[in-house]
Amino acid sequence: MFRTHTCGELNLQSAGQEVTLSGWVQRIRDKGGLIWIDLRDRYGITQLMMEEGTSNPAVIAKAKELGREFVIQAKGLVIERISKNLKIPTGEIEIKVVEIKILNKSILPPFTIEDNTDGGEELRMKYRYLDLRRTPVRRNLELRHRMAIETRNYLDKQNFIEIETPVLIKSTPEGARDFVVPSRMNPGEFYALPQSPQTFKQLLMVAGYDRYYQIVKCFRDEDLRADRQPEFTQIDCEMAFVEQNDILETFEGLTKYLFSTIKGMNFPEPFPRMTYADAMKFYGSDKPDIRFGMKFVELTEIAKGKNFKVFDDAEIVVGICVPACADYTRKQLDELTEFVKKPQIGSKGLVYVKFNFDGTIKSSVDKFFDEADLKNWASKFDAKPGDLMLILSGNETPTLKALNEVRLEMGKRLGLRNPDTFAPLWVVDFPLLEWDEETKRFYAMHHPFTSPKPEDIGQLETNPGLVRANAYDLVINGVEIGGGSIRIFNKELQKRMFTILGFTDELAQAQFGFLMNAFEFGAPPHGGIAFGFDRFCALFGGSDSIRDYIAFPKNNSGRDVMIDSPATISDEQLKELNLKITFEPPKK
Amino acid sequence: MFRTHTCGELNLQSAGQEVTLSGWVQRIRDKGGLIWIDLRDRYGITQLMMEEGTSNPAVIAKAKELGREFVIQAKGLVIERISKNLKIPTGEIEIKVVEIKILNKSILPPFTIEDNTDGGEELRMKYRYLDLRRTPVRRNLELRHRMAIETRNYLDKQNFIEIETPVLIKSTPEGARDFVVPSRMNPGEFYALPQSPQTFKQLLMVAGYDRYYQIVKCFRDEDLRADRQPEFTQIDCEMAFVEQNDILETFEGLTKYLFSTIKGMNFPEPFPRMTYADAMKFYGSDKPDIRFGMKFVELTEIAKGKNFKVFDDAEIVVGICVPACADYTRKQLDELTEFVKKPQIGSKGLVYVKFNFDGTIKSSVDKFFDEADLKNWASKFDAKPGDLMLILSGNETPTLKALNEVRLEMGKRLGLRNPDTFAPLWVVDFPLLEWDEETKRFYAMHHPFTSPKPEDIGQLETNPGLVRANAYDLVINGVEIGGGSIRIFNKELQKRMFTILGFTDELAQAQFGFLMNAFEFGAPPHGGIAFGFDRFCALFGGSDSIRDYIAFPKNNSGRDVMIDSPATISDEQLKELNLKITFEPPKK
Repeated sequence: MFRTHTCGELNLQSAGQEVTLSGWVQRIRDKGGLIWIDLRDRYGITQLMMEEGTSNPAVIAKAKELGREFVIQAKGLVIERISKNLKIPTGEIEIKVVEIKILNKSILPPFTIEDNTDGGEELRMKYRYLDLRRTPVRRNLELRHRMAIETRNYLDKQNFIEIETPVLIKSTPEGARDFVVPSRMNPGEFYALPQSPQTFKQLLMVAGYDRYYQIVKCFRDEDLRADRQPEFTQIDCEMAFVEQNDILETFEGLTKYLFSTIKGMNFPEPFPRMTYADAMKFYGSDKPDIRFGMKFVELTEIAKGKNFKVFDDAEIVVGICVPACADYTRKQLDELTEFVKKPQIGSKGLVYVKFNFDGTIKSSVDKFFDEADLKNWASKFDAKPGDLMLILSGNETPTLKALNEVRLEMGKRLGLRNPDTFAPLWVVDFPLLEWDEETKRFYAMHHPFTSPKPEDIGQLETNPGLVRANAYDLVINGVEIGGGSIRIFNKELQKRMFTILGFTDELAQAQFGFLMNAFEFGAPPHGGIAFGFDRFCALFGGSDSIRDYIAFPKNNSGRDVMIDSPATISDEQLKELNLKITFEPPKK
Repeated sequence: MFRTHTCGELNLQSAGQEVTLSGWVQRIRDKGGLIWIDLRDRYGITQLMMEEGTSNPAVIAKAKELGREFVIQAKGLVIERISKNLKIPTGEIEIKVVEIKILNKSILPPFTIEDNTDGGEELRMKYRYLDLRRTPVRRNLELRHRMAIETRNYLDKQNFIEIETPVLIKSTPEGARDFVVPSRMNPGEFYALPQSPQTFKQLLMVAGYDRYYQIVKCFRDEDLRADRQPEFTQIDCEMAFVEQNDILETFEGLTKYLFSTIKGMNFPEPFPRMTYADAMKFYGSDKPDIRFGMKFVELTEIAKGKNFKVFDDAEIVVGICVPACADYTRKQLDELTEFVKKPQIGSKGLVYVKFNFDGTIKSSVDKFFDEADLKNWASKFDAKPGDLMLILSGNETPTLKALNEVRLEMGKRLGLRNPDTFAPLWVVDFPLLEWDEETKRFYAMHHPFTSPKPEDIGQLETNPGLVRANAYDLVINGVEIGGGSIRIFNKELQKRMFTILGFTDELAQAQFGFLMNAFEFGAPPHGGIAFGFDRFCALFGGSDSIRDYIAFPKNNSGRDVMIDSPATISDEQLKELNLKITFEPPKK
C-alpha cells in the first residue's frame, strides 16, 4: 500500500494518527536543525517535517538526497503545526516523518512547476506532462470534467440518450476540409473523420430516438488560426417533434444549469434574443458582445449633403458613442485612427466628435459640419456631455465590420469586457444562404440540412439571398458557444436545397442519398444544436484560449510537439494501403 | 407545439384531459364502425380511436389515408378503455381523436418494424435507421446509455477524472495495425488513430492526475473476425500509487456496482482469482467460463505404458468428466468425434469412457485398458455413475485448447451456459512475453509497458519466456471484459523491455522517447485497466454480438453499408494530401 491518505485530506482531527503519504516534492526548506518538505499530489499539499535531534538521522540523511519533483513515500505522525497556514485545508498540521522512501527520482525539470512558470509556450508543450502538473492547468481540466458531468446530469434528466456515432465515416464535398483515412481492406477507398455527427443524429431522429446527445470529438482539416484545433469536442444534441423555441428553451436551460452549478451564477431572466439583421445593424457582428452598450447609430441621412466627400461617397455613415471619453488626447485619437487603418480592419479613416464636459462640441470634421449639425448627431447618439463619438463610413458591410472592431477595442479600453461578467444572447433568423463572390455560388450559412423559414420557402429559387433560416446561435460575451437549426425533414425540400447549392441530382444522391431516402420512411420534424465544448470551458474558466482546456493540444501547424506527430510511416504501411507519397521533401 | 405528452405517459389519472400526441403509426385496425391506431414513440405506445357516428367524418377519412410508419400528430380526449391491456403502462386508456395531422408520410418499409422482423442482416444494416426503430434494438442502446451513466457515477465518486486524450496521434510499429490519417499541413507525414490511449494515460499519471478514466473510441485496422469492429469503445482507466490488488478491488467494485444498479444482481463474495497457469491447465483457456465445472483432469502418467500407441506417443493425455451423459448414443459420440476433428479444433480423435448408471464401465479403448485401469481413471475424475469421460491426447498446447472447445460444447449442450447467469473471474499472473515462431522473437503479451513481477525481473534476459507480468484480465462467462497491468515507470527497465522486444535504442527513442523521458521527471508507480465497453454491454444484454449494441456498426469488410463508406475521394483531395493511389481496380 502506497498511502493511507492523499496530500489534501489531513487536518487537526487527524492529529496523533500514523499515516503514509505519497507524492511529489514541491519544495524543501532546510533550516539547519529543521527540514520541511511540501509534498504534493492532485488533492493538495501536506507539510512533512524532520528535526535534528528528535528525528532518525537516517531519515534526515534521506531527506537531504531529495530534489524537486522526486516521487516519495513518507510515513509519520500527524501533529499540530506551530505556525499555521490557514489558506490551505491541511495548513494546521504537519507530518513528523519516521520513514522516507524514494519511489522515483527526478532530473531538473526544464521549467518551474509553480502557478506562474518561467517556461515558454513551446517548451511547456514539449513537456506537456510537466505543464499539466501546474495547479492552474490542473484546475482547467478539473473544470472541464465538472462541466461534462453537469452537462450529462442535465441532459440525462431531460430524457436525452447519449448515443455514440461512428468516427470512420464518409468524405463529403460540402463545408470544410475532411481528414481522411485510407482503407486497407477496401483498396483505393477512404473513410473520413466527422466534422460533426450531423447526418447520424438526424438519422437517430428518423429512428425515433427523440432526444439524442453526445459529447464527441470532431475533426476539421483547416489552416489553423490562433485558436483552432484540428480535433475539438462538441456537446452535440438533437430533438424530434420540436420547434425552434423548444430547442432554445431546452438549451437555455442547460446553459443556466451550468452557470448555476459550476459558477454559482443565476440568470433569472430569459436570455435576450436578437435577429441576425439587428446584430449586423447594431453591432456589425453575428456574435455581439452585449456586456456593454455602444450600439451602432446610423448617420447616413443626416451626414450626407454637406460637401464632405468622404461621407457623400459612402454607402453608410455609422458610429458609436463612447461614454466619458471626450477628454481623449490627440495622441489617443491618433492611435485609434491607426487602429482602424490596420489591414485586418481596413478603414480609410476615423471621424470623431467630442461632446465636451462643458457642453461644447468639437470634431475632426468641423470644416464641413457646424455646431447644429454636430448637436444633431449627438442627439441621434443620445450622447451626454463627456462622451466621444467615433464615426466610420464607406461600403456597408466592411464599414459595419470595422466599427465592430472599434467598439470591441473601446470596450476593452474601458474595462467593459470583464471575464467574470457573462452576457448570453440568442442570435436568431440567420440567412439560409451566403453568396460567395469567388466561386459565384451560394453556400449554406450553417449547413445544407438547415430548414428555411416556412414563410420564406417560396423565394428559395427566386430570391435565395433573402431566405431566412430557422437557425440560431448562442453567443456569450461575443463568443459563439453554440449553434444549430431546425432541419429539413422532407425529401423534396432537401433535394431543392442541394440543387440551389449547385449539386447535381447524381452527386446529391451519391453523397446524401442515405439521408434523403431515410426521409421517405416517416421522418419526424426535428432540430438541434451543438456547443463548442472546448470554448465553453475556456469561457467558464475566464480564458480566451481553448488550448488551456485541452489536455494534449496541437500547435498551429497541427503538430503534437510532445509525441512529435504527425510523422512518417513505413514503406510497408504505405504499400499495404496502396498509397504512394508524391511530395518530394526539399533536399538538405 | 407538437405534443403535450409522449406516447408512454398517459394513464387513468389523465382521463378527461385534452392531449396532443405525435409519433409513428405502428398499427391500424379498422373494424368497420371503429378505427384504432397504435401510436408509437421512444417512450411507448398509446392507442388512438375513432368511431363512425360520434367522431368527425373528416378525422375518420384522414385516418383511412394513414399507413404504417406515417408520422402523425393527433389531438383528442383521454378516455378509459373498455378492453384494457394491462401489459403496457398506457393500456387502461385510449385517445378519442378529434384531429389528425400527417406530419410526414412513409413508403412501405423494406422489413417489418416489429420485435421480430422479417428483414435479413444485410437489409437491416442498409436501413439501419429503420432497424433502430425496433424495440429490442432500442433497448440495447438504452442499456448502453445506462451503463455509461453508471460507470461514470461510480468512477466520479471514486475521484477519477475524465480527461479526453487525442485521437490524432502517432503510428507505432508494435501491436496491431494502425489506421493512419495523412496530414495535409505536414506533407508526407501521417497521424494514426489510437488503438488505446495507453501512453497518454500513463503521461497523465506522470502529470499527477492520480485517477483517470475515459469512455473512449479506439481503432484497430485488423482483418475483421465475426465479432470485431474497426472502431470500438473502451472504459479506459489508470491509477497512480497503486499495486495490483488496489486496481482489482477498485474495478471489481465497478463491476459489482454495474451488476447491482443495472441488473439488480448482487455478488457478496470477492470474485475468484486464478493464475494464468491454472487457467491453461484446468480450462485450456486464458478466459475460462466458470459458470460450470468439468475442470480438466490430467491422465498422462496413468494412461501411458499400456500399449495404446496414441497415448504413449502423446505429450499429454487429458480429459473432462461430463455429468450424467453416460447414456450418450453411438451417434452422439460420433458427432463429438467429428466435432473435435474439425480443422478449427484439430484433434485426431476422442476417447470416451462411460461410467454407466449400473456401475459398469465401458470405453472406446477397452482393447488396451481393463476395468481396473478405467476405474482408476474414473476415480481421478471423481466420476459418479452416469458420468461420461471425454479424453484427448497429443501435444500439450493444442490438446488443451481442443479440450477447451469440447468443454464449452458440452456446457452448451447441457444448458450450463445460461446468459442470465454471471460468473466473473480475475485471471492473473500472465506471462510477460509470448514467443512467435514465425518471426522468431518475443512479443509483449499485453503491451510493452507492462511491468514484470519484481521477483522475476532477474530472468528478463536469461529466461524471458518464464517471466510473469503484473497483468490481469477480468473474464465473465468466458468472455474477456477487461484487461490491464501495473506499468513500468522506470526509464532503464522500459529500455530493457524494448531491447528484449527487438527495438534498437534509436527506434525505441524515436517511437516512445517522450514516454521514457517523462519517466525521468518523477514518474509515480501506476497501473490501469481497460474494459471493452461494447462487449460489456452485450454481456449485460445477454447477447454474443457487440454489433447489436452499436448504433451504426460496420460489416465484416469494415464497410458501413448504410452510408456506403469507405468511398473514393476526389483527385483534388488526393493532390492536396500529396498522395497517389497505386491500386488498379480490376477492369470490368
